[in-house]
Amino acid sequence: MERFELVRARTLALVAPLTAEDCQVQSMPDVSPAKWHLAHTTWFFEAFLLAPHLPGYEPCDPAYAVLFNSYYVGIGERHPRGRRGLLSRPSLDDVIAYRAHVDAAMNRLMRMVDPARWFSLVELGCQHEQQHQELILMDIQHVLSCNPLHPAYAAQAPAQSAQLPLAWHEMPSGLYEIGHHGAGFCFDNEQPRHHVWLDSFAIASRLVTNGEYASFMADTGYARPDLWLSEGWDIVTGDQWRAPLYWDDATGAWSRFSLNGRHPVDPNAPVLHVSYFEADAYARWAGARLPTEAEWEVAAHATPLAQLADTAWQWTASAYHPYPGFTPPPGAVGEYNGKFMVNQMVLRGGSQATPPSHARPTYRNFFPTSARWPFTGIRLAR
Amino acid sequence: MERFELVRARTLALVAPLTAEDCQVQSMPDVSPAKWHLAHTTWFFEAFLLAPHLPGYEPCDPAYAVLFNSYYVGIGERHPRGRRGLLSRPSLDDVIAYRAHVDAAMNRLMRMVDPARWFSLVELGCQHEQQHQELILMDIQHVLSCNPLHPAYAAQAPAQSAQLPLAWHEMPSGLYEIGHHGAGFCFDNEQPRHHVWLDSFAIASRLVTNGEYASFMADTGYARPDLWLSEGWDIVTGDQWRAPLYWDDATGAWSRFSLNGRHPVDPNAPVLHVSYFEADAYARWAGARLPTEAEWEVAAHATPLAQLADTAWQWTASAYHPYPGFTPPPGAVGEYNGKFMVNQMVLRGGSQATPPSHARPTYRNFFPTSARWPFTGIRLAR
Amino acid sequence: MERFELVRARTLALVAPLTAEDCQVQSMPDVSPAKWHLAHTTWFFEAFLLAPHLPGYEPCDPAYAVLFNSYYVGIGERHPRGRRGLLSRPSLDDVIAYRAHVDAAMNRLMRMVDPARWFSLVELGCQHEQQHQELILMDIQHVLSCNPLHPAYAAQAPAQSAQLPLAWHEMPSGLYEIGHHGAGFCFDNEQPRHHVWLDSFAIASRLVTNGEYASFMADTGYARPDLWLSEGWDIVTGDQWRAPLYWDDATGAWSRFSLNGRHPVDPNAPVLHVSYFEADAYARWAGARLPTEAEWEVAAHATPLAQLADTAWQWTASAYHPYPGFTPPPGAVGEYNGKFMVNQMVLRGGSQATPPSHARPTYRNFFPTSARWPFTGIRLAR
Amino acid sequence: MERFELVRARTLALVAPLTAEDCQVQSMPDVSPAKWHLAHTTWFFEAFLLAPHLPGYEPCDPAYAVLFNSYYVGIGERHPRGRRGLLSRPSLDDVIAYRAHVDAAMNRLMRMVDPARWFSLVELGCQHEQQHQELILMDIQHVLSCNPLHPAYAAQAPAQSAQLPLAWHEMPSGLYEIGHHGAGFCFDNEQPRHHVWLDSFAIASRLVTNGEYASFMADTGYARPDLWLSEGWDIVTGDQWRAPLYWDDATGAWSRFSLNGRHPVDPNAPVLHVSYFEADAYARWAGARLPTEAEWEVAAHATPLAQLADTAWQWTASAYHPYPGFTPPPGAVGEYNGKFMVNQMVLRGGSQATPPSHARPTYRNFFPTSARWPFTGIRLAR
Repeated sequence: MERFELVRARTLALVAPLTAEDCQVQSMPDVSPAKWHLAHTTWFFEAFLLAPHLPGYEPCDPAYAVLFNSYYVGIGERHPRGRRGLLSRPSLDDVIAYRAHVDAAMNRLMRMVDPARWFSLVELGCQHEQQHQELILMDIQHVLSCNPLHPAYAAQAPAQSAQLPLAWHEMPSGLYEIGHHGAGFCFDNEQPRHHVWLDSFAIASRLVTNGEYASFMADTGYARPDLWLSEGWDIVTGDQWRAPLYWDDATGAWSRFSLNGRHPVDPNAPVLHVSYFEADAYARWAGARLPTEAEWEVAAHATPLAQLADTAWQWTASAYHPYPGFTPPPGAVGEYNGKFMVNQMVLRGGSQATPPSHARPTYRNFFPTSARWPFTGIRLAR
Repeated sequence: MERFELVRARTLALVAPLTAEDCQVQSMPDVSPAKWHLAHTTWFFEAFLLAPHLPGYEPCDPAYAVLFNSYYVGIGERHPRGRRGLLSRPSLDDVIAYRAHVDAAMNRLMRMVDPARWFSLVELGCQHEQQHQELILMDIQHVLSCNPLHPAYAAQAPAQSAQLPLAWHEMPSGLYEIGHHGAGFCFDNEQPRHHVWLDSFAIASRLVTNGEYASFMADTGYARPDLWLSEGWDIVTGDQWRAPLYWDDATGAWSRFSLNGRHPVDPNAPVLHVSYFEADAYARWAGARLPTEAEWEVAAHATPLAQLADTAWQWTASAYHPYPGFTPPPGAVGEYNGKFMVNQMVLRGGSQATPPSHARPTYRNFFPTSARWPFTGIRLAR
Repeated sequence: MERFELVRARTLALVAPLTAEDCQVQSMPDVSPAKWHLAHTTWFFEAFLLAPHLPGYEPCDPAYAVLFNSYYVGIGERHPRGRRGLLSRPSLDDVIAYRAHVDAAMNRLMRMVDPARWFSLVELGCQHEQQHQELILMDIQHVLSCNPLHPAYAAQAPAQSAQLPLAWHEMPSGLYEIGHHGAGFCFDNEQPRHHVWLDSFAIASRLVTNGEYASFMADTGYARPDLWLSEGWDIVTGDQWRAPLYWDDATGAWSRFSLNGRHPVDPNAPVLHVSYFEADAYARWAGARLPTEAEWEVAAHATPLAQLADTAWQWTASAYHPYPGFTPPPGAVGEYNGKFMVNQMVLRGGSQATPPSHARPTYRNFFPTSARWPFTGIRLAR
Repeated sequence: MERFELVRARTLALVAPLTAEDCQVQSMPDVSPAKWHLAHTTWFFEAFLLAPHLPGYEPCDPAYAVLFNSYYVGIGERHPRGRRGLLSRPSLDDVIAYRAHVDAAMNRLMRMVDPARWFSLVELGCQHEQQHQELILMDIQHVLSCNPLHPAYAAQAPAQSAQLPLAWHEMPSGLYEIGHHGAGFCFDNEQPRHHVWLDSFAIASRLVTNGEYASFMADTGYARPDLWLSEGWDIVTGDQWRAPLYWDDATGAWSRFSLNGRHPVDPNAPVLHVSYFEADAYARWAGARLPTEAEWEVAAHATPLAQLADTAWQWTASAYHPYPGFTPPPGAVGEYNGKFMVNQMVLRGGSQATPPSHARPTYRNFFPTSARWPFTGIRLAR
């Protein structure tokens, strides 16, 4: 129960620096308004805990079940994703009241009902809300970046990074096991634990830096089709990519927009907001490659790696697919992860925006190959 | 000066029923957020009056000159129209403060500076703001219509209309004059006054009603290509139009969404929110046609017509083009009306949302042939 | 009958320089394959003459009635316009056989049946086929222009033009009549003849030349938004227009592609392949304007104008709309011209590709404002 | 040399039933005209064999190097893929002459030059041409399917299939090796041979039949979102899929269009022309899954499977990615396969259109998840 309250409170704290209007905007179809995140994470508890398990629960507003469902077909109709930004009502204040209404009912539930019936679902709801905490930050960064005024989410300027040495950790070939095991929480897609054969490989001790990436750019990396996957090259030329997302050189030198506003690019900091195509092209240019997700997970357990889970999600060379023997949990709550197991790549680690208790070496994040607005980065292998 | 204050106050009164989030949303590229209208009408006074004429004027925020310019190329850069809904900053409160800042400076200007230098520009700014008062209402109706909760701008239910008899007013052929003359205000596109020859014609005494339009629908009007212009038919089939905008029969009977919320269609009320294509197809089905703008203006002067300027803008059969001898005023302030003289049709009259002092028989409104979100209606001729 | 045979033979002669593959290609949705033109003009005689009037007529292939109908809804289903280029069958040889089949039957009809029943329809079919003769040439120029090999339809190089002096013909104000009258053929949209009041105006004695247009380009005409209608400016910037269609300066000097292949731009020849937006912007830059269609027609009757009907269709400032009192002929044959009376501009005159007997001063050609692939040019007024 | 001649002759034989117009049409961007296939396969020998290795070779036409290059950036410019259907010149006859010109030069090369310098490249060219032989058939089927006349490539009606029993072959868990080894030809993407751990699994002895797939359709398979990957469901609803490609029930019963024309669906024949999304949804409905490519390859070696490589390419659950240690061959000839290793799924086996000598158990075909025009089918695993 304390964990529930802490997670719920942290979400509210994340939107505290934002105005009602900030929380309203959907800057592209992939982005959801912060207000929607606040409501959707609340709806999760209402739909999966309160409605089925709390006797006499009265929903805050029956229409919210449609407005704030995301993908759970088994639960019923949903408001179209690309039109979330059109919902000026309920207001931010209404949504905060909705949160309080649900929190109060959750308190009743957790006091009245046998924990065996709700404990794992509440934990799932907390984990789900933590995912959305990171989404709130990456989405609001995109929203604010669309404003020519360049408003900062947090005022302080980022500190300059020190230069980290680069080392290569060698791993022997062999039959390994990957996937979650043990008592802690995991999502369904991290299981079952299973064998995988790996040839010997080496993995970088830290992420690629802005300075290294700028060398790729200076070496005409964005103008050499031989470095790019064919689909990536079509995007580079069609959308005229020439730097990571949020980079700009209108003033003559490269700056980047972050939650702290627009600042000069720090050459020692890890490069962020690159797509899979850019990570892959950079690796090819550097004479290296991206690790597979199995390589990443095995190395993360076996050897100390810097910037493992607190800096950037790291693109792997593995498409997102079910582990051998994967079966989604029964019911609507099991709908999510399995539905996206195609045309996405796995990212491992965790970012500066990931809640601390939310990362683990078996965690499988995933995004389409062109996504740049998540907190993505590059760790090389060879 | 009193007029300036009345117009400015009326704009604020129009947004009083709206939340900050309502004022933020851009529900389609043609729609602007109410907040943007509030700021843009203010920018007009800042750009054309205060900056050039008030000594020592300090702009509220120099960035607003880019954010809130609409089409005035001569004034400088503009924020892209389709991205107005992404500007969560400045907030609604900031924009209201911007209005107060400009209003105060306007007061200083009007006291300090010779009226000959600002009088006609202030009147132009007030007329411009009155145009946007109507836009605020038609845009917010669209915004609210996108919300499954169907929120009403104004709570009261519309009164039932009485049935108006239909008569045809006959006008003889002859050489007429149209266009503005005399002392009052007009926009540049209403001049010069000029001759036009008209053959004899008849014009309807009132607008087409919902009930009459429903007969067209019941007679498979939306399914008969012979009634439609080719381009209109492509839209009817492509977008699956089967009724005016905001009509819905999900519950079995036709209702329509208006600023008062969703209510049953009133058969005696005039049909609203039809495109030029629908007005033209209806007229063909009814064995009539739409009047030209010259016919409309001549008849409006010569004979009493019901629902002339307080109900709906009336599609004419005239494309929007310059009157013979038209020359736009010099400078950026003259940029607007001339820039749109192609691929638009003229509408005459005025709607329920038009400020009372804003309509006149020579007024030329214009919209593209597919526009349905303005307050449009149908007056027949033959 | 002789006229029928001459028109039909001329169409075949026009495609004689083309291969079966040339006749197959649809290079954009607005373009039709030459093979389709050959078949559609034939279908017109089959649908409107042979099927209703020739006893015992057997269609060549019943499927052709769907494949080769263009817009005549009253006649039945149609193959989608944008997919005409997918019809590899019937082959070019099959279509030529279809023409022979229909020509033979037409010969029987014209011998057997009372001329009063077919004379005007045959003339309409011949006029319709002459329209398509020009379409064949403008469409095949576009098709060939898409080929990097720049194949020429006709091998001879164009002769250099002599410089024509420019004079302005003054016309007094007054009440004029326009529209077709007398015994000769005209399309429905040229009637009824009606009065129109014109203020005094002047019209240019010849068309704008390539050299004059190049001066507009050199004076940054394509980079000055104040010269352009708003919708035109969106296209100029979106599609990066910087010269008329078919112009290219890849080799350092401007050349243009025509039916004769690619050759240097002739400064004394009239500029061709400009959109309405370009014609309008050029006129504004030149301190002039485009004539209305009534001005054009009145001047064409009253005064000798060079390049009247043998060089280029001349954009007018008039939107295409029905003349006062216009009523389309009954039946499917009357469907065509009325269906397009919106969002198009009238062009007057005739081009180098117009069959000689096909032009007349009352002829109303029409195209959308962005069309550049017709043989369009510019005559100024003021 | 005999192999070269046989392969080249077979390509010509494949287009013998087609007209010049058939060979011209590009019915969608993914499809190439048959004429382009004829030329591109010829260009391959010119670019990689004749130009670098045959002294004094004169190209047939230097422009062909641009027109008929596909993806080989290292070789130079390319004509845009989506505009291949616009190239009416060179004609089909010209392209056949191009083939003869190159074949004659290849004969000189193979007689004059040391086989060690050309043998493997000629074999690669033959394999490449065999790939395009299958593409010619799948592309022309799509072209002909767009024609309302339903022309057949081959006139004979397909024979009715006998019912094949379904059995499940069990495979034990263990460490296996997959990938090409030994002396025969393989593409670069089939190497290196490497270890892979497999849990025990079972694989179906034959492909899913039309009758079985029709049961899925009858059980509302296309209307149940729980059966579909999220991206697939968006396509099902957006494009209104309700059956495999080429199926039609306009006449009341299901028929399908094939190279033999339109015929009733044979319930015992394997289902063809399904996307990955449909294969995956069918498997989920059937309580099974798709095999991984490693499972497929191991089973294909270990156990007799019906319809292994002569019926349909079989979707696997494996994304197309490089094998561990993969490195593309140096030079432009190595560009192809590696460029597409993202957002595609691997298909194994071979189809009725695959040249007999072209299939092998290690062959990795690949297509995007929405592709339906290849000869695709479904083999289940569990």
